Amino acid sequence: MEMILVTVTAVIALLFALFTAKKLAKSDAGTEDVRRISGIIRKAANAFLKRQYTVVAIFFAVIFVLLLILAAFGAGNWFTPFAFLTGGIFSGLAGFIGMRIATSSNGRTVMGCKQSLNKGLRTAFSSGTVMGMVVVGLGLLDTSLWYLGLKHIAHMDPSQIANTMVCFGIGASSMALFARVGGGIFTKAADVGADLCGKVEAGIPEDDIRNPAVIADNVGDNVGDVAGMGADLYESYVGSVLSASALGVFAGLEEMGFIVPFLIAVAGVIASIIGTFFVRTGENATQKQLLASLRKGTYISTLIMVVAAGAIIYFMLSGKEGINIWGLYGSVLCGLIAGVAMGAVTEYFTSDTYKPTQKLAKASDTGSATVIIDGLALGMRSTMLSIIIVVAAIAGSFFLAGGTIKDPGIGLFGVGIAAVGMLSTLGITLATDAYGPVADNAGGIAEMTGQEPYVRERTDALDSLGNTTAATGKGFAIGSAALTAITLIAAFKSTVEGLGYTFNLNILNPQVLIGFFIGVMLTFLFSAVTMQAVGRAAGRIVTEVRRQFREIKGIMTGEAQPDYEACVDICTRSSQQEMILPAVIAVVAPILVGILLEFNGIAGMLAGAAASGFCMATMMSNSGGAWDNAKKYIESGAIGGKGSDNHKAAVVGDTVGDPFKDTSGPSINILIKLLSVVSIVFAPIILVIIKAIWGI
Amino acid sequence: MEMILVTVTAVIALLFALFTAKKLAKSDAGTEDVRRISGIIRKAANAFLKRQYTVVAIFFAVIFVLLLILAAFGAGNWFTPFAFLTGGIFSGLAGFIGMRIATSSNGRTVMGCKQSLNKGLRTAFSSGTVMGMVVVGLGLLDTSLWYLGLKHIAHMDPSQIANTMVCFGIGASSMALFARVGGGIFTKAADVGADLCGKVEAGIPEDDIRNPAVIADNVGDNVGDVAGMGADLYESYVGSVLSASALGVFAGLEEMGFIVPFLIAVAGVIASIIGTFFVRTGENATQKQLLASLRKGTYISTLIMVVAAGAIIYFMLSGKEGINIWGLYGSVLCGLIAGVAMGAVTEYFTSDTYKPTQKLAKASDTGSATVIIDGLALGMRSTMLSIIIVVAAIAGSFFLAGGTIKDPGIGLFGVGIAAVGMLSTLGITLATDAYGPVADNAGGIAEMTGQEPYVRERTDALDSLGNTTAATGKGFAIGSAALTAITLIAAFKSTVEGLGYTFNLNILNPQVLIGFFIGVMLTFLFSAVTMQAVGRAAGRIVTEVRRQFREIKGIMTGEAQPDYEACVDICTRSSQQEMILPAVIAVVAPILVGILLEFNGIAGMLAGAAASGFCMATMMSNSGGAWDNAKKYIESGAIGGKGSDNHKAAVVGDTVGDPFKDTSGPSINILIKLLSVVSIVFAPIILVIIKAIWGI
Repeated sequence: MEMILVTVTAVIALLFALFTAKKLAKSDAGTEDVRRISGIIRKAANAFLKRQYTVVAIFFAVIFVLLLILAAFGAGNWFTPFAFLTGGIFSGLAGFIGMRIATSSNGRTVMGCKQSLNKGLRTAFSSGTVMGMVVVGLGLLDTSLWYLGLKHIAHMDPSQIANTMVCFGIGASSMALFARVGGGIFTKAADVGADLCGKVEAGIPEDDIRNPAVIADNVGDNVGDVAGMGADLYESYVGSVLSASALGVFAGLEEMGFIVPFLIAVAGVIASIIGTFFVRTGENATQKQLLASLRKGTYISTLIMVVAAGAIIYFMLSGKEGINIWGLYGSVLCGLIAGVAMGAVTEYFTSDTYKPTQKLAKASDTGSATVIIDGLALGMRSTMLSIIIVVAAIAGSFFLAGGTIKDPGIGLFGVGIAAVGMLSTLGITLATDAYGPVADNAGGIAEMTGQEPYVRERTDALDSLGNTTAATGKGFAIGSAALTAITLIAAFKSTVEGLGYTFNLNILNPQVLIGFFIGVMLTFLFSAVTMQAVGRAAGRIVTEVRRQFREIKGIMTGEAQPDYEACVDICTRSSQQEMILPAVIAVVAPILVGILLEFNGIAGMLAGAAASGFCMATMMSNSGGAWDNAKKYIESGAIGGKGSDNHKAAVVGDTVGDPFKDTSGPSINILIKLLSVVSIVFAPIILVIIKAIWGI
Repeated sequence: MEMILVTVTAVIALLFALFTAKKLAKSDAGTEDVRRISGIIRKAANAFLKRQYTVVAIFFAVIFVLLLILAAFGAGNWFTPFAFLTGGIFSGLAGFIGMRIATSSNGRTVMGCKQSLNKGLRTAFSSGTVMGMVVVGLGLLDTSLWYLGLKHIAHMDPSQIANTMVCFGIGASSMALFARVGGGIFTKAADVGADLCGKVEAGIPEDDIRNPAVIADNVGDNVGDVAGMGADLYESYVGSVLSASALGVFAGLEEMGFIVPFLIAVAGVIASIIGTFFVRTGENATQKQLLASLRKGTYISTLIMVVAAGAIIYFMLSGKEGINIWGLYGSVLCGLIAGVAMGAVTEYFTSDTYKPTQKLAKASDTGSATVIIDGLALGMRSTMLSIIIVVAAIAGSFFLAGGTIKDPGIGLFGVGIAAVGMLSTLGITLATDAYGPVADNAGGIAEMTGQEPYVRERTDALDSLGNTTAATGKGFAIGSAALTAITLIAAFKSTVEGLGYTFNLNILNPQVLIGFFIGVMLTFLFSAVTMQAVGRAAGRIVTEVRRQFREIKGIMTGEAQPDYEACVDICTRSSQQEMILPAVIAVVAPILVGILLEFNGIAGMLAGAAASGFCMATMMSNSGGAWDNAKKYIESGAIGGKGSDNHKAAVVGDTVGDPFKDTSGPSINILIKLLSVVSIVFAPIILVIIKAIWGI
């Protein structure tokens, strides 16, 4: 019964997205110029996604068949292959819709800004809202329908449902990895390539129409920061709900344990919809006021959640044996608070209104090398506060829920609902996050179509705000990834124990210890692979742009048009090639480690990857964000200003930060969860192999 | 009885060092010019050490009193405070003697090179030999005398001795941390500062006498790369022997378990002495031949060890119940092979004769940002092979020795003697390693005293070789640190269990898991703190050099002398200030974690720090080495050559790499061991506190 409510809420979210999109469609699409450029960007972005989904489809087909074979041989579940497909398709769909709306809103945002700042803000934010609602709507729709099907058609009991559905994350996670890595490589290769040749070598401004990579750069914002982020957060959202639900059942809460996390998500959707109505601003709003108006929406949603979560837990779980209602409510609050705190820390370390980024900008006095050293150190240092928040949230949600070291079941469920709580308001946090790239694109279009300066000023104001909200969003993504990863390790353990395996998870068991070392290493390796992919792709762009500048006469004087297509094409092809290896690592590593070190080794690997992945992702995202904003800080006139030696040094930092914050960092969040889900899904076959090899 | 042999060998090593030093003293100390500059460097280096030891003495006094108080209240051992002192003093002494000999050999190496390449090589290598022998000699002297005292004067049984002496590493480890961090900050601040102002801004060559920071730079080689490395490897050596010995006793091997690791070390000393006689080269030797001549010595020592280790284990342990002689021998071989393999991997990733560094140099085509991205990725990627080697060594030595998951005792002893095996030939590997900075200094002196070009060419040949041997040495240091860290975790567990605490080391125990997250974070934090320290100190040097260029007229024309003292002074003061925080982190973290998360949390933290520290140290050392050599590769004429844009881009990489490879990276190796030893030493008082707080 309650689950039908979830389905209904999912539909409401989707209808709200549709309604918002329709309203957007009625707004002014712009002059011919604006529509032409917006059209080019849209076409290229669609072409990328088409190609991307073709490659991903092959991967999905392979894994689908593999899962079918496993199921046929009794080493797997018949539903998993199909849930794998629906998860992947819905995740891809969320990214696709988000990108469609973003690419049709960029020009509209320019026109909005022409009218007023508030109109511009509303347009970009509405685009983000569509994205946010589509993500949560599709996520809840997919999972609630599966639940209803498994319960009422397949007549499974809660425990079977939990065991089956915890595998379902693999579809969304794989899709998310491809979207993040592929999109991340595209966007950063284009960005780095455009910057290196345009800003640094040819000395033309950002987004200059003469730069052959400028369209690719703008396309990148959409495929990386919109479609990639959409699939990514779809994954986080679905993953956290599914693992919390499974842990609820494993903890002995039966059906209610499964349903409560969904209901918390439902409350979050409603809270988010209400929150979006509060986002508006006056004319001549300062940066601070703009931020405040976005914040208002988020805070109101969070406040609603604080009340709603209490009500849900009270009504659903009171009277259950061995349950401490207020404790569990405390767990959800831990998640909500930790989410806000993570956002605040990220902002502190990456916003140029605070000391760390200002000091980083100052390091440009002694050249680019010190900018790099300081930026890396800043990111590494920032891991301390983030870790404290996350471990406090883990410990708090675990012990408040009533977990003990001897009987951790309910405590782990507490960690699970903390993660769900943190992500519950995703509808609106994602809206404020996805609004950024639209504003960024609008700035590009304004520049390329030669709008009057005040328009560009307004888009810049919106864009710069987008950097802050993106940082906050990253804090959420990382924090929830850490919590979800831990719940997935617990779910992995329960699942494998269900297969009849007995764990020895003592950290001095060499299997566990070696697994640890390998897990930690995996995040280093994964970062290296994704960073180098960006480096290689960017190198190809640089070569191409240099060729065009050399061979196509008249680009600089505006007499000839550069070949934008060629750059888009290089980005597309490169990202398709380069995203294969990271995906293979994520799928092969758990299986290999399992075969060599049994499930104890896998558990160690998962813990190692979670801890080290958390620190690495935090570092990369904060270093990258701080470098970006240190550069912007200098561009705003501080410490030498635009064009100074300080600025040049800061540009180097920003360029290094690009793959950090938009490719490697966010991909690691997905990696640490995908490793867990792969381990869970392939556990039965791994067990068969290790029995055959090691004779256990 | 056998332990007296250890004492005798220690004395032999020291006598051999004395003999080598005497012979060195007889060689030509050089023209007045050379002696003057060498004298300035020596004076400054001594002044630094004096100041350093004064600061360290305060720290030691505080901890000494603390340990005395703990012992007085029954929460500690009466011997530990004194062993803490002797360990610190001997470690400091090793660094001091090594530095004395290095600063008196740099000028002699110039004179040697004037005669012949072989003479230059022999001089620099002899200086390294003194250092190597002093380190192993003092290490074995200190520990064997304590053993004899505890056994024959205090009449302890082997188990008491093991429990007491495993605490003794704290003195050497603390000293090593100060030496590495303090020396590392000094040397890199001077290096970065001199490069930024001299090479990059003023456009004068490296080691130019007009650069006010040039003397500080040369002093830095001695205090960082010689004294720092000496104390560091003293720590590794003593730490690995002590923890292996303790594990031998814990595994039930009684006195023989304690003595065998010492005997392996003894064999290594003899093997090293023999090996040194094989290091010589012909005239006009190519780079390859030079390397081969150094390698010859190491390989011969290793071969001797392969035979000797077998003999020792056979004669000492055969007939013991439950012991697999050949298995334990296999464990030692695992260590020896892993050491060589680690060196080879490091060389592959950092030498410009291989693809990775050449490709990195090529990345300079697209500017400094891509050099940084590629270099970071190279270092991260290199962790994969290193991890594989180390986990193979751990698994191999554990299972070969007969360890099982249920009864790991003897297996852990296997890991312990693998670490001892790896470090057994330290006498000669350290000699080839410590020879580098002497050659580097000789190059500086040759430049500053205007020697004929062929002299500088020869010192350059020796110096460049030094980079390779330094890389190999770092591979050893990191590999042995990982193995020793694991044995120390095991020793920690045994010690604390001896206090009556019952562990629950399941990785899903939140205490362990949270400890693990904190341990991983600590290496990020520690890296940040040490890197920023270098950045700050380098900034001060830059400001000072710029001031001198501006205010002291005639520096550039050679009419006025720069104020070298001022730069040395800034480096000294900065490094003293900046080394406090890292040391405090290392001491406070385990105690704090212990109080909050009990000993389970400490164990998690130690495992996390070991795994993440290993990857971080590997990455930093390999990224740094590759950047350095990519720059040298370009300077040798490849890809644009000296002064080209490529070269400028590569210099940025090299500068970022400086604190990576010579400050943060090596310090992490010490950190992960110091954390363990602090945990062991302070376990009794932590137990008292957690009993009071948590009532367990």
